[in-house]
Amino acid sequence: MITIGLDLGGTKILAAAVEDGEVLDSVRVDTPQSGFEDVVDALVGTAEELAARGFASDAIGIGSPGPLDKERKKVIFSPNIAGLEDAPLVAALEERLGKPVVLENDANVAGYAEHLYGAARELHSSVYVTLSTGIGGGLFLGREVIRGAHGVAGEIGHMTLMLGGPMGGDGHAGTLEALAAGRSMARDASYAYSAEMDTRELFARARKGERKALGIVENAALFTGIGLANLVKVFDPEAFVLGGGLTEVGDYYLSRVQAAAEHYLEGYPVPPLRLAELGGEAGVIGAAAFAAAALEGR
Amino acid sequence: MITIGLDLGGTKILAAAVEDGEVLDSVRVDTPQSGFEDVVDALVGTAEELAARGFASDAIGIGSPGPLDKERKKVIFSPNIAGLEDAPLVAALEERLGKPVVLENDANVAGYAEHLYGAARELHSSVYVTLSTGIGGGLFLGREVIRGAHGVAGEIGHMTLMLGGPMGGDGHAGTLEALAAGRSMARDASYAYSAEMDTRELFARARKGERKALGIVENAALFTGIGLANLVKVFDPEAFVLGGGLTEVGDYYLSRVQAAAEHYLEGYPVPPLRLAELGGEAGVIGAAAFAAAALEGR
Repeated sequence: MITIGLDLGGTKILAAAVEDGEVLDSVRVDTPQSGFEDVVDALVGTAEELAARGFASDAIGIGSPGPLDKERKKVIFSPNIAGLEDAPLVAALEERLGKPVVLENDANVAGYAEHLYGAARELHSSVYVTLSTGIGGGLFLGREVIRGAHGVAGEIGHMTLMLGGPMGGDGHAGTLEALAAGRSMARDASYAYSAEMDTRELFARARKGERKALGIVENAALFTGIGLANLVKVFDPEAFVLGGGLTEVGDYYLSRVQAAAEHYLEGYPVPPLRLAELGGEAGVIGAAAFAAAALEGR
Repeated sequence: MITIGLDLGGTKILAAAVEDGEVLDSVRVDTPQSGFEDVVDALVGTAEELAARGFASDAIGIGSPGPLDKERKKVIFSPNIAGLEDAPLVAALEERLGKPVVLENDANVAGYAEHLYGAARELHSSVYVTLSTGIGGGLFLGREVIRGAHGVAGEIGHMTLMLGGPMGGDGHAGTLEALAAGRSMARDASYAYSAEMDTRELFARARKGERKALGIVENAALFTGIGLANLVKVFDPEAFVLGGGLTEVGDYYLSRVQAAAEHYLEGYPVPPLRLAELGGEAGVIGAAAFAAAALEGR
């Protein structure tokens, strides 16, 4: 079954016609920053362009950053796309496209793609973890995503791992994200060096063996490993799939995450840490897969 | 459908004929401490007694404390029942009874009973948490228990919530159980008062307002609340069902757990904390329900 997947990002919209996890054709446009109507126009335009090329589907999937409302009809917090917040995204798209539209958050979408067609494709269960500016995730079992009773399931970056600890963007201190995400490493680096520093420079300095930089990286890897270990004790997936920018710095960082997870899982099974495989296409592949699932009544 | 559930405890075996969560008849005997063969004899004896009274089923469920092997055929750690450890429990029972036997750990069994027939009976998802000498749990979704890839899912007492922290029985420091279970409170009380003290006396002193006792209880409630909050961020159940001896000390303790969970869930949905309803019958009801599920091919 061919379905259309839309990946709404802060700077780009990618739309693709997808069949069994394979991208057949795609369209990319800039994300408008001029308000909700223009975002809807741009999304509809990509779907219409694919239709003009001969690709249409009876349902359309869309992945978006930010938490969604409980019914998955709106994005309720959207710092990077002007006008999207609390706007009736699904309703507007369904009216314009005349077809059912399925909205999911970006971590669930990318994770679903990896679970069905990417790094975890042969597995029954997996947990997708995005290690990036922030830390997000998704839990997958069979052909299902575990959404939870309020759509909060998989918000693994918000697990509390330290009493007190640094304050997170959600008003909670000591969360995995506040302890270990890219933005938290940059915060610690800027403090420790008394100068603005991004993770790129931090990792370069850590590689050279600078003690402060190394300490920051090791601390983040430690808490990431504890977070993964806790997920084993709660959900026990067959594998973790790791995506996001922090995985691209390579073995240097991931080997430390692996070591920390193994330490905190001594005596327990240690699921393999697999790298995400689908790259920039994960969003459209996952969104299209959710559309297919909706059509199949799942 | 009538099925037989066996609840193998450290001191007693309870066996019951159960239909749709209702106990129709039951048999109780002491748990032999004279070795594996005698445990099997006792279990078989209870099932035969129920059969003699006219109750039989095509599959038998059994709940047991302790971690099970991955295939759920053996108990792999059993400090309280002599000879049970690593013995072929399911194979021996199936040979003697001539019927399929389904083995589950006691937290999954009690939680499954509460999920289907007790405190969470009308809900799609729930997490069962036993607050007792130790802390265990089970995750339930639809009519399924989430067992995980290696049967580890639901081992929520082993989540790490503190770097360093007190050492747990599983060789990991700073786990929820080592921070907040009954045995950990007794440990802290015995240290703080320089005298052996059980949780019963600790709670009595805390109620009188003794500062050391109150501090220990509040600390345990705090980490229990953090653990529940983390479970919302991972699994987001419709409700928690709390069982185990610590729930019986009443509002005094539970109101503090509730307050801590609410604090760490500010900005997130707070699932209700429900008290387990099935009491001493949860084990046989859950075991019988797993037998019924096996017969129905679930």
